[in-house]
Amino acid sequence: MGPLATARFYEALVRATPAHSDQEHIRTVIWSDPAIPDRTAAIVDGGPSPVPAMIAGAQRLRRMGAELLVTPCNTAHHFLPVVARAARMRTIDMIDATMAQASKAGAARVGILATRGTRAARLYDAAGVRYGVRTIYPDVATQHRFVDRAISLVKQADDRALAGRLLSGAGATLCGAGADLLITACTELPLVSGDLARATTVIDSVDCLAAACVSALRC
Amino acid sequence: MGPLATARFYEALVRATPAHSDQEHIRTVIWSDPAIPDRTAAIVDGGPSPVPAMIAGAQRLRRMGAELLVTPCNTAHHFLPVVARAARMRTIDMIDATMAQASKAGAARVGILATRGTRAARLYDAAGVRYGVRTIYPDVATQHRFVDRAISLVKQADDRALAGRLLSGAGATLCGAGADLLITACTELPLVSGDLARATTVIDSVDCLAAACVSALRC
Repeated sequence: MGPLATARFYEALVRATPAHSDQEHIRTVIWSDPAIPDRTAAIVDGGPSPVPAMIAGAQRLRRMGAELLVTPCNTAHHFLPVVARAARMRTIDMIDATMAQASKAGAARVGILATRGTRAARLYDAAGVRYGVRTIYPDVATQHRFVDRAISLVKQADDRALAGRLLSGAGATLCGAGADLLITACTELPLVSGDLARATTVIDSVDCLAAACVSALRC
Repeated sequence: MGPLATARFYEALVRATPAHSDQEHIRTVIWSDPAIPDRTAAIVDGGPSPVPAMIAGAQRLRRMGAELLVTPCNTAHHFLPVVARAARMRTIDMIDATMAQASKAGAARVGILATRGTRAARLYDAAGVRYGVRTIYPDVATQHRFVDRAISLVKQADDRALAGRLLSGAGATLCGAGADLLITACTELPLVSGDLARATTVIDSVDCLAAACVSALRC
């Protein structure tokens, strides 16, 4: 949904595919519609619902021959079950795939770096319950001043160095609060998580979704 | 056509778009069909033509509502006029956009780093005539051992460091032969041209296509 996040996801999908020539890669169709209403605003602030536009996009993809629907936007997963049902498409749950990875890594308590929408929809908390992993989040001020700001800097293709520093700051508070590892639970964040990933263990929801796609398609 | 090149092009398009939120970006549909027959093999070795698959892809994109057809593959431009005509779509010529940039940079003689197919089809030579810019290429052995190998390493998502060194080696021979600047005239090459671009002036055909799209759509 964020266009840079979409480009980053497609690159991750290609890198996760065991292929030795173009011809061995997965045939992919991408519908990148940045006009889809903001997911966090819909969840938190009563903004317009993204569901009609998401269903229309999914139906276009199905008409293009897509067999598997994936949405490289964590927050949009609040709406994805409804969308996939309406479009009658099989989908992959990025949040489940990411939490499965955190559990496999032996984490008991994970720090979640996500949008306010993903937090409010408790998407990672529900997955955490399934995997017996506790989730912790930045306090409201840190969420706003560090995480939300880093995400909007990436969406604006603005100062990435600053976005990276803000993300590292938020991550440090979560490690201080006892997180065994961190999850970049917004698909914009892996674009600026380099320094954070050098300082601590970070699981990237984009890479987890890409790996889950490749397994689902048995590449 | 190369999936990593496609991801890289979409990222370049997003970065070239003056936007401050997701909602201001260009609605984009990407048909990434890695099974399209190899363009260089079709031009040089009498391999199967990519034209039917390219036309089918362009028609799918038009059915998805695409108004402008772009193909982030230099070699495919040998076939693009036929494809665009068959699909009745407006298109942008990446090679013309790139040579226009080289001419604007004041180059009299440009070194072309491209596939054997792009060379054989003389795509950059024809554009050079239009802009009064001379084109020079690596000798056959350097083309094969350095350029072709660097391209296939990127397509295999294999050793990027080696690919970068091979590209720098080929670039050095062109500078030695009097090139004023170099063009990465294969969309895989900008993925590994960092060192080369630090050593000399490099014009990236991917960035030129992205900029031309944004102007064409008057963003």
